[in-house]
Amino acid sequence: MTNTVEVTELLLREAQQSLLETSIALDDLIPVCEDLDNAGYWSLECWGGTAFHSSLRFLNEDPWEKLRTYRKLLPKTRLQMLLRGQNVVAHRNFDDSIVGRFVEKAALNGIDVFRTYDALNDVRNLKAGVQAVKKAGKHAQGAICYNPSPTDTIASFVDLAQQIKELGSDSICVQDVDGLLKPQAAFDLVKGIKQKCGNDTVVSVHTHSTTGVTLVSLMKAIEAGCDIVDTAISALALGRGHNPTESLVAMLEGTGFESRLDVERLHRVKRHIAGVRPRYREFSDQPIAVEPETFRHQIPAALMLNMEYQLDGQSTPHLLDEVAEEIQNVRRDAGYPALAIPASEIIGTQAMFNVLHGKYSAITSEFADLMLGYYGTTAGKKDQGVLAKAANRQNKTAISCRPADLLEPSWETRRTEALAQGSNGSDEDALTLAMFPNAATRFFQTRTAGSRDTAKLAPEARGTIEPLKAARGEAVPAESRTYIVKVSGEEHSVTVRPAQ
Amino acid sequence: MTNTVEVTELLLREAQQSLLETSIALDDLIPVCEDLDNAGYWSLECWGGTAFHSSLRFLNEDPWEKLRTYRKLLPKTRLQMLLRGQNVVAHRNFDDSIVGRFVEKAALNGIDVFRTYDALNDVRNLKAGVQAVKKAGKHAQGAICYNPSPTDTIASFVDLAQQIKELGSDSICVQDVDGLLKPQAAFDLVKGIKQKCGNDTVVSVHTHSTTGVTLVSLMKAIEAGCDIVDTAISALALGRGHNPTESLVAMLEGTGFESRLDVERLHRVKRHIAGVRPRYREFSDQPIAVEPETFRHQIPAALMLNMEYQLDGQSTPHLLDEVAEEIQNVRRDAGYPALAIPASEIIGTQAMFNVLHGKYSAITSEFADLMLGYYGTTAGKKDQGVLAKAANRQNKTAISCRPADLLEPSWETRRTEALAQGSNGSDEDALTLAMFPNAATRFFQTRTAGSRDTAKLAPEARGTIEPLKAARGEAVPAESRTYIVKVSGEEHSVTVRPAQ
Repeated sequence: MTNTVEVTELLLREAQQSLLETSIALDDLIPVCEDLDNAGYWSLECWGGTAFHSSLRFLNEDPWEKLRTYRKLLPKTRLQMLLRGQNVVAHRNFDDSIVGRFVEKAALNGIDVFRTYDALNDVRNLKAGVQAVKKAGKHAQGAICYNPSPTDTIASFVDLAQQIKELGSDSICVQDVDGLLKPQAAFDLVKGIKQKCGNDTVVSVHTHSTTGVTLVSLMKAIEAGCDIVDTAISALALGRGHNPTESLVAMLEGTGFESRLDVERLHRVKRHIAGVRPRYREFSDQPIAVEPETFRHQIPAALMLNMEYQLDGQSTPHLLDEVAEEIQNVRRDAGYPALAIPASEIIGTQAMFNVLHGKYSAITSEFADLMLGYYGTTAGKKDQGVLAKAANRQNKTAISCRPADLLEPSWETRRTEALAQGSNGSDEDALTLAMFPNAATRFFQTRTAGSRDTAKLAPEARGTIEPLKAARGEAVPAESRTYIVKVSGEEHSVTVRPAQ
Repeated sequence: MTNTVEVTELLLREAQQSLLETSIALDDLIPVCEDLDNAGYWSLECWGGTAFHSSLRFLNEDPWEKLRTYRKLLPKTRLQMLLRGQNVVAHRNFDDSIVGRFVEKAALNGIDVFRTYDALNDVRNLKAGVQAVKKAGKHAQGAICYNPSPTDTIASFVDLAQQIKELGSDSICVQDVDGLLKPQAAFDLVKGIKQKCGNDTVVSVHTHSTTGVTLVSLMKAIEAGCDIVDTAISALALGRGHNPTESLVAMLEGTGFESRLDVERLHRVKRHIAGVRPRYREFSDQPIAVEPETFRHQIPAALMLNMEYQLDGQSTPHLLDEVAEEIQNVRRDAGYPALAIPASEIIGTQAMFNVLHGKYSAITSEFADLMLGYYGTTAGKKDQGVLAKAANRQNKTAISCRPADLLEPSWETRRTEALAQGSNGSDEDALTLAMFPNAATRFFQTRTAGSRDTAKLAPEARGTIEPLKAARGEAVPAESRTYIVKVSGEEHSVTVRPAQ
């Protein structure tokens, strides 16, 4: 047994998303790639999640080409992506033919480690992804969404870890997107997983620094046997982002644990990123702060910001506390899904509608589908009255099967469509179209113009939230209406009509 | 044995100094006093250190009156001050008659806990202060300045703690002003003090969040038996400030340790302070960041900022790395005093002179006095060549006695002077004059105008550093010259002349 603690660096993807709400231009990152590649990281997280859509929509940049570029610039270190299970890198379920093809192509283009999660912690939604990763000969990391609730306990998370391992996962990630993982819980959870799944089970912990306490949680996770932790270089850390990589290295000194990281290289990366960060100043809405109040409402910072923004847009900022409280009610009614994408946004929007228009008097189609099991099954029980309203609203019944089992294989159709829409004929383009049809179609037409310099984009084009037009009117229209709601840089369609 | 962890809140004094470089107006603090007083804190740090001079000089505010106001607003909780040993709240040694009278009056006006430190860790400089505190029937907390060096080890700090205890101190504080205290060192140091001084010795840990790692250090200190920790409410925390109070509370959950703090009251304090903080935005130079590079150069953030500012003022910002390195050389030559006030500023200025004018070709009188023992004795050995130059420059010999033993009692003289300068006849006014003769004389004349609203002050009047005029000229004048150098809001006189 070695006491080495491995580190996944988040600078190249999630740290940018959490703190800048945009992507740093590749030209600003190229100078640090050699140091990153030689610093001794276990992996460099650089792709997937919201970044796929952001590349396409705001930077006019082929996400696949970006991945290939990273692979060239970072030949030695594992590249890691965030895969949303059956949602891949979007907000809705895809059939297994799309999931499988996406993973195959991501592996071929350079991804070594696939972290796969499902906001409902429904392991059936991780299965196709994990199997495809194993088929591609890559590292499948299955993630638990850590979001405590009356039905989500250390014991239930440990059981979930066991199920994720049984899928064939090479490692288990405890994924805490809100900074809610307290030190003792981190210790107990990692210890529990090691005891249940075997001491040789590789455990990774991902957390955010939002609440100010999670570097301590990483220390406790490490004491319990955690193998890999996620951090971000200190020039792009803290706040709603992550714990600083260099602080982690200093934390371990003399404790009997150590990272393999080269502090001199980390220091050079920090200096460079600190130098370029001011170029992105106008993209960052929030000054770095610490928000221990997240423990009170347990709502992700990004969702709170979204709600604030939308309520401000309608001159009803005084309703924020009420909406925050209602988010917890709606989460309970829906059987306590984790407030991770896409469940976080579905629940947030429904909570706002409840406050503005009366409790479940307008139900979004996404929320109805969530209630009816079309995103998967939650661990908690659903409210039967709300379930009935949802069934009535969608005019369909609840399901308990794996939702993707209801979907027809669509790969060939998407491929044909992509060719018709002006793709370059690659499978990668067809997958891009499958993920984001509108953005992909636009991108195929503008691809030759080349990528935009993020720092020169107007703030309006930065890929953040827009006011929710639906909520502006006083009265809810009697007929159903569909709105395009852009959240964290991704558009999704929200259809509302009165529940009765 | 209870597992209660006590907390000292820094919001009312040091958190303001570390993050805003000014003082928050009393009117902005009054609304949180009831919650602070009832939240369950062990003490509220609210007076002393740089705040005394800042009140007087920038806010036209009687520091003694401010203390009495806090006492009225905060009747239940211990009020705490920072006493710089024989330097009291200024930058030079005072005789024991002044130290004794100051402590007596501070106790009468409301202080319960006196944290006393000396930058050289010369316990003889703590003696008069601790004795005066005991005589006043108050809590004497003796502090170790934690600043690692080849001569400062865990064992030597533990020995120092024992000496501080033997002075009659009621508790021992490990005071880390730069965030250099790593988790394992925190554990070993607290454990060592408990073993050497007895398990019932009350130990307090004060640290800054500069390097991003010190909340973990507080956890480890607590595991080793630390009784009291210092934190700041989350709306005025992190960066070069302190770890957030609410994060500490969350950190302890389920660990077998707990604070006595009322989270609802903390939340109300946070909301209010977050609301008023933007009024002071222009006083804060630095965005909140994390600076693990402090471990490399071990230089306090305030001193680095000072050096940056002064080098920028002379268009020599490229010399910063060289000055930073030279600070460590000068610190070594001076026998490794801690880089705490006033030694930090004396060493920083000398290092800059060395870089600009050649190594010890101009020696400040303060640095010469530091070398010659007029601030006390350091644990490390001094460089004999530099010592000789210092003796030559001052035309006096090195001493090894307690420096204050050389000073005549001056209390009666100061008292008479204060009356002549327009004081209100109180002993408090005489002490104010003793501390800062120029600022006090001005204040006595403008007192009736009332205090200024900090937030309305121009940034120039905020009490931060000014360019060092002495360093502007290319050539060093052959004759000695004296400059007023203002650092962290306090003026001190720096006299330079060529060493030969």
